[in-house]
Amino acid sequence: MRRILAAAAIAGTLGCGGTSPRFGGAGDKAVRAPEWDLVIDITPMRVGTSTLSSFEASFPGGVGDPVLSVQIYQRSDELEMIVEQRRAALAQSKENTVREAERMLAAAERAGVAHMVCHNFRRIPAVCLADQIIRDGRLGEIRHFRGAYLEDWLLDPAFPLVWRLDRRKAGSGSLGDIGSHVIDLARMLVGEIAEVSGVTETFIRTRPLAGRPERKGRVTVDDAAVSAVRFASGAIGSIEATRFAPGRKSRCAFEINGSLGSLAFDLERMNELEVYFASDPPAVRGFRTILATEPVHPHMAAWWPPGHIIGWEHTFTHMMRDLLEAVADGTVPSPSFRDGVMNQRVLDAIERSSKSRRWVRVKGVA
Amino acid sequence: MRRILAAAAIAGTLGCGGTSPRFGGAGDKAVRAPEWDLVIDITPMRVGTSTLSSFEASFPGGVGDPVLSVQIYQRSDELEMIVEQRRAALAQSKENTVREAERMLAAAERAGVAHMVCHNFRRIPAVCLADQIIRDGRLGEIRHFRGAYLEDWLLDPAFPLVWRLDRRKAGSGSLGDIGSHVIDLARMLVGEIAEVSGVTETFIRTRPLAGRPERKGRVTVDDAAVSAVRFASGAIGSIEATRFAPGRKSRCAFEINGSLGSLAFDLERMNELEVYFASDPPAVRGFRTILATEPVHPHMAAWWPPGHIIGWEHTFTHMMRDLLEAVADGTVPSPSFRDGVMNQRVLDAIERSSKSRRWVRVKGVA
Amino acid sequence: MRRILAAAAIAGTLGCGGTSPRFGGAGDKAVRAPEWDLVIDITPMRVGTSTLSSFEASFPGGVGDPVLSVQIYQRSDELEMIVEQRRAALAQSKENTVREAERMLAAAERAGVAHMVCHNFRRIPAVCLADQIIRDGRLGEIRHFRGAYLEDWLLDPAFPLVWRLDRRKAGSGSLGDIGSHVIDLARMLVGEIAEVSGVTETFIRTRPLAGRPERKGRVTVDDAAVSAVRFASGAIGSIEATRFAPGRKSRCAFEINGSLGSLAFDLERMNELEVYFASDPPAVRGFRTILATEPVHPHMAAWWPPGHIIGWEHTFTHMMRDLLEAVADGTVPSPSFRDGVMNQRVLDAIERSSKSRRWVRVKGVA
Amino acid sequence: MRRILAAAAIAGTLGCGGTSPRFGGAGDKAVRAPEWDLVIDITPMRVGTSTLSSFEASFPGGVGDPVLSVQIYQRSDELEMIVEQRRAALAQSKENTVREAERMLAAAERAGVAHMVCHNFRRIPAVCLADQIIRDGRLGEIRHFRGAYLEDWLLDPAFPLVWRLDRRKAGSGSLGDIGSHVIDLARMLVGEIAEVSGVTETFIRTRPLAGRPERKGRVTVDDAAVSAVRFASGAIGSIEATRFAPGRKSRCAFEINGSLGSLAFDLERMNELEVYFASDPPAVRGFRTILATEPVHPHMAAWWPPGHIIGWEHTFTHMMRDLLEAVADGTVPSPSFRDGVMNQRVLDAIERSSKSRRWVRVKGVA
Repeated sequence: MRRILAAAAIAGTLGCGGTSPRFGGAGDKAVRAPEWDLVIDITPMRVGTSTLSSFEASFPGGVGDPVLSVQIYQRSDELEMIVEQRRAALAQSKENTVREAERMLAAAERAGVAHMVCHNFRRIPAVCLADQIIRDGRLGEIRHFRGAYLEDWLLDPAFPLVWRLDRRKAGSGSLGDIGSHVIDLARMLVGEIAEVSGVTETFIRTRPLAGRPERKGRVTVDDAAVSAVRFASGAIGSIEATRFAPGRKSRCAFEINGSLGSLAFDLERMNELEVYFASDPPAVRGFRTILATEPVHPHMAAWWPPGHIIGWEHTFTHMMRDLLEAVADGTVPSPSFRDGVMNQRVLDAIERSSKSRRWVRVKGVA
Repeated sequence: MRRILAAAAIAGTLGCGGTSPRFGGAGDKAVRAPEWDLVIDITPMRVGTSTLSSFEASFPGGVGDPVLSVQIYQRSDELEMIVEQRRAALAQSKENTVREAERMLAAAERAGVAHMVCHNFRRIPAVCLADQIIRDGRLGEIRHFRGAYLEDWLLDPAFPLVWRLDRRKAGSGSLGDIGSHVIDLARMLVGEIAEVSGVTETFIRTRPLAGRPERKGRVTVDDAAVSAVRFASGAIGSIEATRFAPGRKSRCAFEINGSLGSLAFDLERMNELEVYFASDPPAVRGFRTILATEPVHPHMAAWWPPGHIIGWEHTFTHMMRDLLEAVADGTVPSPSFRDGVMNQRVLDAIERSSKSRRWVRVKGVA
Repeated sequence: MRRILAAAAIAGTLGCGGTSPRFGGAGDKAVRAPEWDLVIDITPMRVGTSTLSSFEASFPGGVGDPVLSVQIYQRSDELEMIVEQRRAALAQSKENTVREAERMLAAAERAGVAHMVCHNFRRIPAVCLADQIIRDGRLGEIRHFRGAYLEDWLLDPAFPLVWRLDRRKAGSGSLGDIGSHVIDLARMLVGEIAEVSGVTETFIRTRPLAGRPERKGRVTVDDAAVSAVRFASGAIGSIEATRFAPGRKSRCAFEINGSLGSLAFDLERMNELEVYFASDPPAVRGFRTILATEPVHPHMAAWWPPGHIIGWEHTFTHMMRDLLEAVADGTVPSPSFRDGVMNQRVLDAIERSSKSRRWVRVKGVA
Repeated sequence: MRRILAAAAIAGTLGCGGTSPRFGGAGDKAVRAPEWDLVIDITPMRVGTSTLSSFEASFPGGVGDPVLSVQIYQRSDELEMIVEQRRAALAQSKENTVREAERMLAAAERAGVAHMVCHNFRRIPAVCLADQIIRDGRLGEIRHFRGAYLEDWLLDPAFPLVWRLDRRKAGSGSLGDIGSHVIDLARMLVGEIAEVSGVTETFIRTRPLAGRPERKGRVTVDDAAVSAVRFASGAIGSIEATRFAPGRKSRCAFEINGSLGSLAFDLERMNELEVYFASDPPAVRGFRTILATEPVHPHMAAWWPPGHIIGWEHTFTHMMRDLLEAVADGTVPSPSFRDGVMNQRVLDAIERSSKSRRWVRVKGVA
């Protein structure tokens, strides 16, 4: 009998912790999970140097106990069936360049397997609600997106030169690490980004070597990035990422303004969505703080009574569930490797515009 | 080999969902978990008609797979050991009267087993931080506690007469169901409540019978309760519970004012604590919004990187962990059945004061 | 030509500053304004020892320049007319006892003059909006009122024994000084309070004498008061006042829950009102933060463009305007001396219940 | 005797209302105040077609009653003296181009009169506090500024083509009208902006003519602008302005991140400042909400007791007071016409970068 090692279980041991300074070295160790049939790796994009082939190596045979099943959705039977029948090999892209991302996509399509990029922010119920509201036309034509992912874990100049600060291993800095999530949300909610004009900066250019603090090495990635953007739809906006915003711990926040309303989100209060409808009666218009914990909210019927919030790991559970549902239904999971390619192209365009000091068009967007 | 069915696992199936209107009937079904050696029942107090004896029946033999282990704390070995050695029989109080609570306590003490009441709010990291701040004397002498647990799930007059609205099954209404948590927090953070003067109210006195909506039955519990309170320490305050506060989904909120500072908490933003220190420099005094997701915060070192919040179920995990730690260390878990007794006495005093229209002293408090 | 000394002008010199510790002695000086025909005194209730007769003395003849006219409403002509014709002598109640308040009311009615109590909180646009929403039935039947006025200016034990801490001069402490405003808002929005059960406390019982800090005198008023209340309508709630809540500078906050919705207000953000309608579509229900600065909001058409907030003194301007409008229209201004009497009766009932340790009915409420 | 027409008095009649859609035509009428000796015009920059010469015409002789004096600061004597001695002719820049601004500055310097630009945001106490905190080095080296001024009054496509939407009269759209305030705050708090890369957009390109709604005319200014910016200090950031953000009424908000802390401000809650100090003890770090209403806060000693907020017009009073103080002391008021010139150069650079699709350096910044 085959088992599945699910998202939350890996979080602490393999990959996801890599977003934390205290797990700064995680990216250096090989991703291994020899005792599982199937690994759904939730490591964020660009985490290391691993490629598609090294990823393939993580599908050996073996048996083990699931640490967390998704049976809260009562779909464990289906889960088993999926694996038994080997109908799918699920993977996650961790490419560092547009070319790698395109190769990943091509490989997955050649193999005919399902493919999904682990942008778990898309499975936060409040974000799903934002998406529903926009799809239903309740905001009208979208005109503005302002998104920023702010962290502060690199403030201390004595913080060592971990792999995330090495361009060869991490690909880029805050831009690829956290800016990529903002870009994914922008693409999900507003559509393709057509062109960008960005600036990147490295505030602290040398840091003590990890393990050899008496020596210093050069930081080869950006500490922060800011970009003005124009969407294919005509909307304009800004995208920012930094690890140098004191007090902002994981503030992935965005605001969207349309012709009929607005909405705002902040990951640090990820169960909430602020929504404004211009059609409300004039005297009682105002941003509503929606606590997205009702059974009517996406993904929430399976969880707690209203008002009892969920945490970060639930986003992985939702992701995995939707992935498995897509596999079972034969539909294309979202975001797919194709989204990974487009995301990579936007990252690439921001980096190039920062160097050329000009607006740069994103490849493949009309 | 014996296994342990842990908190989060039960949540959806046995008890905890009972706090939700959509699981309104849950309290009626017998609590059974025959395939486990040990049941750590996380059902809140006063859930139903179960008594100590029926509770005992839930400790049969049997083997099964743990749905969620606490190995995130890497203590599963200890866990096994505890059960193997039968060093403890853990239980949770669900008494409806002071007398039942006292009998529970006596039984547990006679048996020499560890005992703990599932007031999981005590294990919310932000609440633990509040406790630390008070213990460290940073608020000085405590003078005010204002706590209220507000919900809105009974607003609809067509909502049926579920077991929670039947005094014989539920003991009391909002007072015992959710007010008990406010009382527990008050006792934890400010100390014993010495006397109370309360009022209870039932706004909707008849409701359709569950399953026979064409007939109506009488609501025999309170819909809401408000009480002025005086603590043994001299602090004064208020405690409130209601299921009739539109928009408040699970707003268990309190504010504490001391001679040197203040703090405020709201369950709907349970990862945050508001703290004010009067000793801050005059120009930069203000309530700080502390996002209690740092490794330095209670229970949080084991979880996510800073800024990534935890959810409601983590409070059960923390509870269970501390319970097991206490068992392993041979210390008294907190809150114990003794706390359950005191809580019950405060509930009882509020009900009596509501009837006598006088201040009532809480038994056993000097 | 006669002139009117208007509200904001007095604020800094005669009375209103009396709410501030730094103007602690203001209440001791006689209220005099000999150069004005008409004094609209905005001193809050119970400010000092002044009586009806000493108040009457403040209407001598004389001429002067208005420091602030209300011509922003373009009603200065009407204003002049009112005074020329002596159609009204406007006054403000500052009684310390129910009996004084009743005498004030009787005197004003005998004289046939307009009378108004300066509960300027009623003229905060967001509070007016709350009133409109309730009057329009949008909250349905009101069930809960929880109101508290929190300040922190007495925290320091070295703060001197100012007149406000002397029962003979101030009548009562936080209860009459700031609790009276909460009571007025409760009566305005929810209706008459039928009965109360309160507790008062004096945390610091002796303080240095003002001007002679080497000697100490006794504080003869309450530092804080908490009361459970029941309204004539059947609603229940709590009313609290304290000067010992660190970090709360002038937090007069209330929440009201009805059968169809809720609203919440906080004076420290006095341009905002939080409103929840249970009738909103389930997925987008949430408290709306209404920024009450639109032309459609009460009193706001005369002020700034939307989003530009008004300050505390505008409440006095609104008050004065409505007073003059009422005089011009021959209608009864609100709140009148009759409201002053009822407010005083609630204060009195809370004090008596605190002593008798029983619920006390408010005189004159069925 | 000469009188001074002070800021708040003009607000409703001459200029400031020009920021409001309902006063949309204000900019077209000539600025006249013949009955005053001295006009301190508070009309924001770029309000209309007025030039330096027409501005000079507003200093005729005449006598009148001051509507609001600044005697709250007890400086009216000095005020009179200033005018009696004609030591100063105070003016306000309302240039539409860099060249006009430079000419204004040259004229004022030739005349030897004091000059000040009415960026009243600089006199908001919370903003002054932000400035103090930064000057004191409490934020360390500044790395990020993200500022946006969001309004929503142009949402309706039927809103007429008022003068503000005509490039010849208004100079530019949201960029010059409200973006200029963000730029001024950025320059005040972070220093000179060295280069920009912006995009401007006009979402609704034709609108009904004012007074002739059956005909449509072309909108010749921007509806919104977004720019990435780099400061001379090395800090990076973004500046945005839009009249198309539903629900944002006058949200001029910024966040600043330094090496030691952060701060955040929002005009809609203009009495508050959010501040984070990285040096706070780890367990109690968090953004403090400072209610800047204490006597210790800039400009606030003259106003109300703590917790009683001030409104928008107080910013003009503060501005005028500081202007008069500067005149009396013979110091240079701030912001001066020189700041007006630099502000205009940044606006100009953003417009040019939007056209050239390249980063543009700001003239005069190293």
